[in-house]
Amino acid sequence: MDIAEYFPIWEQLTEEERETISRTASWQAVKKGTILHNGSADCTGLLLICSGQLRAYSLSSEGREITLYRLFEMDICLFSASCMMHSIQFEMTIEAEKDTEFWMIPTEVYKRLMEHSAPLANYTNEIMASRFSEVMWLMEQVMWKSFDKRLAAFLVEETSLEGSRQLKITHEMIGNHLGSAREVVTRMLRYFQSEGMVRLSRGTVEVTDEKKLEELSRS
Amino acid sequence: MDIAEYFPIWEQLTEEERETISRTASWQAVKKGTILHNGSADCTGLLLICSGQLRAYSLSSEGREITLYRLFEMDICLFSASCMMHSIQFEMTIEAEKDTEFWMIPTEVYKRLMEHSAPLANYTNEIMASRFSEVMWLMEQVMWKSFDKRLAAFLVEETSLEGSRQLKITHEMIGNHLGSAREVVTRMLRYFQSEGMVRLSRGTVEVTDEKKLEELSRS
Repeated sequence: MDIAEYFPIWEQLTEEERETISRTASWQAVKKGTILHNGSADCTGLLLICSGQLRAYSLSSEGREITLYRLFEMDICLFSASCMMHSIQFEMTIEAEKDTEFWMIPTEVYKRLMEHSAPLANYTNEIMASRFSEVMWLMEQVMWKSFDKRLAAFLVEETSLEGSRQLKITHEMIGNHLGSAREVVTRMLRYFQSEGMVRLSRGTVEVTDEKKLEELSRS
Repeated sequence: MDIAEYFPIWEQLTEEERETISRTASWQAVKKGTILHNGSADCTGLLLICSGQLRAYSLSSEGREITLYRLFEMDICLFSASCMMHSIQFEMTIEAEKDTEFWMIPTEVYKRLMEHSAPLANYTNEIMASRFSEVMWLMEQVMWKSFDKRLAAFLVEETSLEGSRQLKITHEMIGNHLGSAREVVTRMLRYFQSEGMVRLSRGTVEVTDEKKLEELSRS
């Protein structure tokens, strides 16, 4: 659990910078379902994910959700420290989608280091560009792709993430990932079922024809 | 037309860095309609806008458009130098929406300076965070706001940008800003006309009740 293993540009930092990070970072383990960052309400710090899975999502004023991106082992969660940049003028919520372990570097510490370290500032730039790219991808999906293709892509991705074709997920949860109403999800899933791509039962969506779903998502 | 006036953190650069920028930057003037950046096809450089107006938009494979954001005097166009960061994995097109004048710093020069300058890297971070914020705002609009409200907001913004209630714009151009089909725009504009908010004639949308449009956009 050495922090150096999870901090990608460790070698480019000075001895003093490494020492500061090692001294101030804390190792944490949270349960599935824990909210790690909630809009502008908190600004915990930068998270270096050791294991588990985080979900970043946007929340409408009516309480609807859409998943922006997910983070996995070796990823860095930047927006849990979003207050360190004035120009970040949007809010997102970050929750642990599985039991998750991470190193947390306090925002103030990271910000101070970044002010003087070009490698750290440039690396932070790259992280932001990655997240920006994921949101642009999503934006293009939402704008140009029909709902059936987005739902098919989501089911294929979930099957891969869960390592199972039996997805324990409600229609409402799927709606929260895709930013859609539950009814819309239900209607489309029933159509997928009639086409032999999934089998529906209470609280479960079983993927029965992954290939066909994948083809649909790419069409 | 001193470049120092358009470069916000000029005082935080070293004498040598300033000299490099002054020596390599070129002043350019382009006509309305000029495409300044086209996806991954080019990587001209960073643009410091002296006057005019740029539009950044995303293009679907079917040729549909949606405006991501606009840039004005004193703004910096970063994505015309997007190749300088590996993690920028999306494409956008940038066009001059009015006759525009700018300083252009070549990508290679800027990238080299940023690698060694923490102030420059941090400043670049802030620019990216600003653009990211604009795209997140747009994303939220597209996800959670109905089309009538988005169209109303667009007409109010255009009236302010053009300094006129007589907007010389086709329904297709409006569709390209909002990522919508022309027919959808026409239908909604006709409804707005029936409500007394606009008056339509060939190639022109006249805003007749700005207050009502503004109220609609905020509701």
